[in-house]
Formats: sequence, structure tokens, C-alpha cells
Amino acid sequence: MKPLILITNDDGVAAKGLRALVEVAMEFGDVVVMAPTANASGQSHSLTTTRPLRVHEVKKEEYRSIYACDGTPVDCVKLAVEYFCPRQPSLVLSGINHGSNSSINVLYSGTMGAVIEATTLGLDSIGFSLLNHNPEADFSGCLPSVRHIIGYVLKHGLPTDVSLNVNIPRLDAGAIKGIKICHEAKAQWRDSFEKRIDPQGRPYWWLTGKFVCDNPDETSDEWALANGYVSVVPIHPDFTCYEAFNSLKPMTTDSL
Amino acid sequence: MKPLILITNDDGVAAKGLRALVEVAMEFGDVVVMAPTANASGQSHSLTTTRPLRVHEVKKEEYRSIYACDGTPVDCVKLAVEYFCPRQPSLVLSGINHGSNSSINVLYSGTMGAVIEATTLGLDSIGFSLLNHNPEADFSGCLPSVRHIIGYVLKHGLPTDVSLNVNIPRLDAGAIKGIKICHEAKAQWRDSFEKRIDPQGRPYWWLTGKFVCDNPDETSDEWALANGYVSVVPIHPDFTCYEAFNSLKPMTTDSL
Repeated sequence: MKPLILITNDDGVAAKGLRALVEVAMEFGDVVVMAPTANASGQSHSLTTTRPLRVHEVKKEEYRSIYACDGTPVDCVKLAVEYFCPRQPSLVLSGINHGSNSSINVLYSGTMGAVIEATTLGLDSIGFSLLNHNPEADFSGCLPSVRHIIGYVLKHGLPTDVSLNVNIPRLDAGAIKGIKICHEAKAQWRDSFEKRIDPQGRPYWWLTGKFVCDNPDETSDEWALANGYVSVVPIHPDFTCYEAFNSLKPMTTDSL
Repeated sequence: MKPLILITNDDGVAAKGLRALVEVAMEFGDVVVMAPTANASGQSHSLTTTRPLRVHEVKKEEYRSIYACDGTPVDCVKLAVEYFCPRQPSLVLSGINHGSNSSINVLYSGTMGAVIEATTLGLDSIGFSLLNHNPEADFSGCLPSVRHIIGYVLKHGLPTDVSLNVNIPRLDAGAIKGIKICHEAKAQWRDSFEKRIDPQGRPYWWLTGKFVCDNPDETSDEWALANGYVSVVPIHPDFTCYEAFNSLKPMTTDSL
């Protein structure tokens, strides 16, 4: 039996990047798509608990089913695994995102929220992002990398509790120098809310911001991307900072 | 000048746990509250980018200002730091959450999303959660622990890029055995969507689930909480799994 590949994203079921990913995945197995009905960027690992979810069947074929769900990317993964996958998926994919999810952006990313959720369910999973925000972005340059990485993971599997955050530079396939295993670069969003006044004289604030990453080291994803490489960051869902244990010891107490 | 403490939560500006945290924080400094107008549980690290934010001034006093914002907990931190704090906060607090944010729940938690966001802005930050979901929960038992930890962090600071995830068992203060530095227990949500049919005959799905944590080891937060201790997990915002680098080496390539 062919492997089953579950695919979601955060740009919505109609996104061009999702269609590109489905095309590559179908070379490897049967595909179920469960993607947000509309754009769900910036939704991180959020869940829908205050209302129920609705699902719309977009397309149903022998080797490919496409559903749209009015929840978050994490909701999509959970609901698809339980109700819409005819068997356990061999792999969960998310993307191809229109825009970078490198470095600290993994915190905010709905694309990567879905990937990490799949890991918590015990499934191998990969998030793909192209460094091009344009809704009409050309995904042809990244397809060889996507194909290589999907093929590798289906053949070799991933370490327990590890998923992959793959970012791909905006280059023609021939210009991409290769694939590098990287760590997240240390970076920051310098926020700057733009305050405006509405016609009734009341203030409101629009979030804007500037991504700042000074001197990324050569093993970081930002360095790889800036130098023409695909960055692959292994991700795990445990936020514990083990290095901090000793320095926090003096806080412990047996009396309060 | 007294330290400035910024406080947010994900249960909303009217939550009892927020009021309890404000009372303790005012023993240490001036307080600015910027909390979601309504309940924002399960919103993780999500951001609002598709509409602007509105802010409502709830209370303005010399040593305490309280604002409500119609965004996520992460939005609240970003906007408060830029526009509503009269000076750089010495500490950012989130909570006291009504219900646990231990173990894997940090992924979904709006309370902890706000805390991690503050870390990315270079600010010391702590999330507090009481293991009691009840909106009328009694917070008196956890106040000595909250006071101890805030006092410690204001005096000694936190390691760079590290915040604290503090969970407190549902016990009287005298019954709490002490404070332990822990790692996140390995746990899982076993989801089970409940499918229902609406009066028009169309299906919809409600998210439900069961938290499963088998045999947590003695250095984990779940063990500490089950045995009467307050758990303090140092958290960092880098999801990279460095241990996986070697095993993924064979995936790298210089030709595609």
C-alpha cells in the first residue's frame, strides 16, 4: 500500500504553495489535504475550543482528497488524523508557505504550529517555506529540494519527537547551492505599532515590525538562506532550557 | 524609582487570577496591566495582523493602570511595551492562569505565549498557572509561591533568553511542599473530536481530548505537581533540537 501523506498549510486551501506541495507529494503516495478555509498566518499553535469546526469537501478522488476546515492549522491536523485520513499518515507536510518561517518566526507560524502538532501525535512531519510572500510566487525553483527532503524522510524516518523546519531561498533550482542542517538564528522583531485615528476620533493600532538578525553565525538558518542554501532546522516540542537548571537552583525552597 | 511590572493573561482582563497577581505585584512595584478584553485561552503565540487593535482604559491610578485590548496575549505584550508602559518594564508577568500550563500545554497556552514574547523583547518574564480551571478558583494558596518567585527574579534576574513557566498545585499554602526546578514532562493530548449533526443535517466537530502523561520522571513538572510541589520550568524560545544534527547529516547535499 502506498504511503499516505497528510498536507496542511496556513495560507489557506486555495494557496498556490499548497498546490505545488500536493503535486510533489503525489509522486510518493496518496494525499489527504485538510487546510484552513481562509488565510491563517500568524496563528502559531492556537486551537479552536469555543466553537465547533466545519469541514467542506473541495475534491474527492481515488488518490487525493482535499478538504477545507474553518479552524487553525493545528485544528486541521488533529481533525484530519482522527476523522478524514483513511489510515495513519506516514508523513505530515505543511506549506509550501508563501514567506519565510526561519529563525524566531517559527514561534508565530501557523505552518510550523501544524508541524509541531503532528510531532506530538507521533507522526513524522515537515514544514516548507519559500522566501517569497507574493501570492503568485513561482515555486518551481524549490521543487527539487522539496522532493529530495520528502524522499529522504519517507525512506529513513526522523528521530523521535523531531520535525523539520525547511526554508528555501528565492532562487532558481540551479542556483541553490545545497541543503544544510542548521540551528535557528538568534533574531528579533523590532515592533512598531502604527497609531491611527478613526473618523470618530478614536485611536487604533496596526502591528508592523522589522526583522533584525545581526551577524548570524555560519551554522544558522539565516546564514544558510542568505548564502544560497536550503536551511533544515530540526525542531522539538520541548521548550525546557536545561542549561538554566543550575543557575536557578537558589530559587528552590522547601518552605514558603 | 520603583520597578515597573507589566502584567497580562489569557483568561481576560476580568479574571480573578489576574486580580490576584496584580495584588502581589503591587507589593514590588508599579503595575501596568494590558490584558485581552475576553477569554483568549489556547491562542498560543498568535498575532493579530489582519485588523488593527483597540484598547480600552479600565482603570488609571498613580501606581496601577489597567487596559483591555481586543488582541491576543502576544499582541498585549508588544503593544503595552511600545505604547502604554511609562518606562521599560523590569518584569513581565502572565496569569495567574485558571488551569494548568504544565508539560506540553505550554505549546497551546496564550499565558505562556505572552511570556515567551517578552523574552524575545529582552525582558525577564514569568507565567503563573494554578491547577484549577474554575473561574471562581481560590488563589490564596498560591500567593506565597508567587511572592517568593517574583521577589527572587526581581533581585537576581534570569539567564539571557530564559523565562519561567510556573505551575502551582491546588493546595492550601501550608500543604505545598516547596518549589522545584523541573523539565517539561513528556505527555500527549489524545484528541477525540465529538461529531454532531446540526438541525439542518450538517456535521460539525467539537474538540475534546484527554491529557496523557505516563510515569513522569522525578525531575519533571508533572511529577512535582502530583507530589505537592510548585514546578518551575526554565523556557527558551529556540526550538532547535541540537541532538538531531548528526543523525540528519546524510540528508544534506550540495547538488539537487
